Amino acid sequence: MSQANLSSVDMFRDHPALGFVDWCLRGVGQVVFQNNPLSGLIILLALFFNSWIYGLVCIAGVVAATLMALALQADRGLVRDGLFGFNGALVTLALVAFTSANFRVGHVPSGWMVVYLLFAAAMTAVVFQSLSALLAPYRISALTAPFVLTGWLFLFAVLKFASIEAGPLAKPVSPEQYDAAVAYVLPTWYMGIGNAIGQIFFQDNWISGYLIILGIAVNSRISAGMALIGAAVAALVAALFGGPEGAIRDGLFGYNAALTAIALGGFFLVLTWRSFLYALFGVVISTWLWASIAIFLKPIGMPVLTSTFVLVTWLMLLGQYGFRALVPVPPAEATTPEDNMRRHRSAPAAQVSRD
Amino acid sequence: MSQANLSSVDMFRDHPALGFVDWCLRGVGQVVFQNNPLSGLIILLALFFNSWIYGLVCIAGVVAATLMALALQADRGLVRDGLFGFNGALVTLALVAFTSANFRVGHVPSGWMVVYLLFAAAMTAVVFQSLSALLAPYRISALTAPFVLTGWLFLFAVLKFASIEAGPLAKPVSPEQYDAAVAYVLPTWYMGIGNAIGQIFFQDNWISGYLIILGIAVNSRISAGMALIGAAVAALVAALFGGPEGAIRDGLFGYNAALTAIALGGFFLVLTWRSFLYALFGVVISTWLWASIAIFLKPIGMPVLTSTFVLVTWLMLLGQYGFRALVPVPPAEATTPEDNMRRHRSAPAAQVSRD
Amino acid sequence: MSQANLSSVDMFRDHPALGFVDWCLRGVGQVVFQNNPLSGLIILLALFFNSWIYGLVCIAGVVAATLMALALQADRGLVRDGLFGFNGALVTLALVAFTSANFRVGHVPSGWMVVYLLFAAAMTAVVFQSLSALLAPYRISALTAPFVLTGWLFLFAVLKFASIEAGPLAKPVSPEQYDAAVAYVLPTWYMGIGNAIGQIFFQDNWISGYLIILGIAVNSRISAGMALIGAAVAALVAALFGGPEGAIRDGLFGYNAALTAIALGGFFLVLTWRSFLYALFGVVISTWLWASIAIFLKPIGMPVLTSTFVLVTWLMLLGQYGFRALVPVPPAEATTPEDNMRRHRSAPAAQVSRD
Repeated sequence: MSQANLSSVDMFRDHPALGFVDWCLRGVGQVVFQNNPLSGLIILLALFFNSWIYGLVCIAGVVAATLMALALQADRGLVRDGLFGFNGALVTLALVAFTSANFRVGHVPSGWMVVYLLFAAAMTAVVFQSLSALLAPYRISALTAPFVLTGWLFLFAVLKFASIEAGPLAKPVSPEQYDAAVAYVLPTWYMGIGNAIGQIFFQDNWISGYLIILGIAVNSRISAGMALIGAAVAALVAALFGGPEGAIRDGLFGYNAALTAIALGGFFLVLTWRSFLYALFGVVISTWLWASIAIFLKPIGMPVLTSTFVLVTWLMLLGQYGFRALVPVPPAEATTPEDNMRRHRSAPAAQVSRD
Repeated sequence: MSQANLSSVDMFRDHPALGFVDWCLRGVGQVVFQNNPLSGLIILLALFFNSWIYGLVCIAGVVAATLMALALQADRGLVRDGLFGFNGALVTLALVAFTSANFRVGHVPSGWMVVYLLFAAAMTAVVFQSLSALLAPYRISALTAPFVLTGWLFLFAVLKFASIEAGPLAKPVSPEQYDAAVAYVLPTWYMGIGNAIGQIFFQDNWISGYLIILGIAVNSRISAGMALIGAAVAALVAALFGGPEGAIRDGLFGYNAALTAIALGGFFLVLTWRSFLYALFGVVISTWLWASIAIFLKPIGMPVLTSTFVLVTWLMLLGQYGFRALVPVPPAEATTPEDNMRRHRSAPAAQVSRD
Repeated sequence: MSQANLSSVDMFRDHPALGFVDWCLRGVGQVVFQNNPLSGLIILLALFFNSWIYGLVCIAGVVAATLMALALQADRGLVRDGLFGFNGALVTLALVAFTSANFRVGHVPSGWMVVYLLFAAAMTAVVFQSLSALLAPYRISALTAPFVLTGWLFLFAVLKFASIEAGPLAKPVSPEQYDAAVAYVLPTWYMGIGNAIGQIFFQDNWISGYLIILGIAVNSRISAGMALIGAAVAALVAALFGGPEGAIRDGLFGYNAALTAIALGGFFLVLTWRSFLYALFGVVISTWLWASIAIFLKPIGMPVLTSTFVLVTWLMLLGQYGFRALVPVPPAEATTPEDNMRRHRSAPAAQVSRD
């Protein structure tokens, strides 16, 4: 990102009135690692394109989490980068998606449910700070773990309180729930890839998925490319190993893989041929382990959310400082893959002489 | 706590013969954060008031864990504060409660079961040291996690060894097991609050609960007040969200919430209006998440124990040093809410000028 | 280990051509804490004695994991000590054992399954580095946790991909699956002890078990003795508490206990009478908790693997620096119990004067 580009992206970051809007839009973008309000805006429009309910629910979540962080006087820099907001956006989307009779468009939550959603979103801000403190000595990011943890905990209870109207999970959550005999066809692939990106935001809409890719691309073409590669490789691997067509077309094998691809493909590791292969390794592992975690969670009726992405990415980044084949980028310095590469190239070649 | 008061409380702490009794009584008090042998004595009497079996079982647990810590030459200061004992008391109580045909009064354990109980209690001393080492860099306490972890692990196995007579879990462990159609009445509230305090020690006896409150109050009125507020708010929230009357009256929604209220309400955070609201936030979350964890554990027939309190309190304290709205009290300095406040007020106003 | 012995053991460690073979044989030995290629070779022969399939599968796993570590340019010293290989050997053995119709001898994996196995083994090298980074501040070892974690995650998914032929788990994984009415006889004991050692490598063959003991003994007689004591005490405790004969004879109560005995009995703690009693305490706990974790995992059809050993040993070592009755040996300094004792005795008596 050039300095000129940076300044236009950051024009509202410190604005007295529009600053808060800017931070919340960045929060939407941070779900896919894009610290850019324009990315957030495009992604939000992609949600509204699929369902105005999800669009509003996403706004409510990111606003509640960001307000909680402000009320607790959290670090201003992190708040303005949208880092307190993105888990809030995800948790409200997940809670509405998995308690709606119609997963695709969602339903309008009841009054008590709104209270519950806003508390859950606020809790993600607390959990984000907690997990960040826990992970600080290891220089890795909390990723979407605050959302996964809060989401699971709040999803269990919501299904049992009489005052909250909630149906059974309307969406299949495991590959076993799909017909194994359906043949792969052309739409398996182009819809599967789009849906995988959409599923990151619980959008069962492949066009929304490609719009989200556009939102990523305005900030980082490498990240957009890695997201597509992640989703495509996941679909391919799932097919090679005989995964059911419906689950591939719905993007279920791919949404964790796409996030793993963005995280490892240039964002937290400087992009080189070695780290690209490492990211592909992570994509393949994420594809298999989505199935694994889905099967593990199915008896208790809980969706995988982005737990596979969090687990695989943590496992592949925790040991990064011990592998000299990789060039780590600490979370506080990670901006975009393009920017990470530029900084690494201009740095003295200290890495090379280590062995 | 004044100096005069302190010295009378500590009169037996270094006594050659009575010292060990003092440390064990403090162990009983530490379950509810009261480092005071008189608190421990009153709580023990509250247990005997309900059932002499539970009274003796509690003594066996706190003694075994404290002896294990002495045998391993653990830190003397921690042993004398009762910190190695309280998880031992809880684990023996839990194992007897959940293997008795009559949950309310318990049954006398068999010979092999006594061996098993004492090993479990001794193990909590090891686990307390382990978790304390694990959490030391983050300056948070192990809380009752050694009890929860050891309790779960030992409860599973006990149900399957032929030499140990154990019935199925006699006590409902999840809100689903209660009739949803019963109306809330006056005893729902006063019995529910008392039972919530009693359930911390597995006592299904609301009068014992209020006696335990008395035991807390002799050491800290703020802690006693927070315990009542926690239990009452939990009952209210559970009712607003349509929780079953039986579970509210049995105090099941409230015992984790009461512990969260004590921990966050002045003990590990200096009590201010902001931290009071933060504690209330934690109480509401604990109420919901008790239901959540209960539903999660029910398929494997495992009770929640105090896992919700541990989880919520850890999540809300881990990030405390990142929230300038809060004034943390490191575990080694936490005494009573009153004392924490006094020390904070007399300290130079360093906190205020940080922003 | 004398210097003369050391040099003969290490003769191929830096050999340009045979070095890799040496590292992989050490990898096999490291499963039971023996950094010695001869130990690895004898253990490998013990596997071939039971089944050539398991012998080859073990080689494939240790080679894949070691190659992954080399490709990622991991620490050379750790690679040469076989520390990146042992979890790879275990994960391929486990995946083949639990997907074979005949657990005892295994079946030859299909082409896609071989790809899957090699990725799983490579992943253990990544996870080993990650967990080592996570545990470094606490100076404890990752043990077989990379195997357990990767094994569980890969076992779930393998059962559901259509391209991988996999039957249901052919081996009982919980004490409940054995007949409770069978009487204990002489073979219960000598076969039970041998099988417990064999089960560490998934070998249902008591003679292989005693061959593995021989492999341990060429490097450390104390470790070999502790393994036998661990397995024997586990069988005794299981019988006293009424565990089923079949599970005792199959060595299921004993394989975690044997590993705990090696780890605590001289390897990570200098062997003294106190630490010997501490190790026995750990053996008893491991015996019970194997049953506990087996019962916990049974509803989802997952085997315990060596999770009990990892959990108990971590819990008993994490707090070691807080117990003055114990003399810890940090992982980087742990060689053999004999060597640890010798170094401790020749060190200035700093430990003694601490209290």
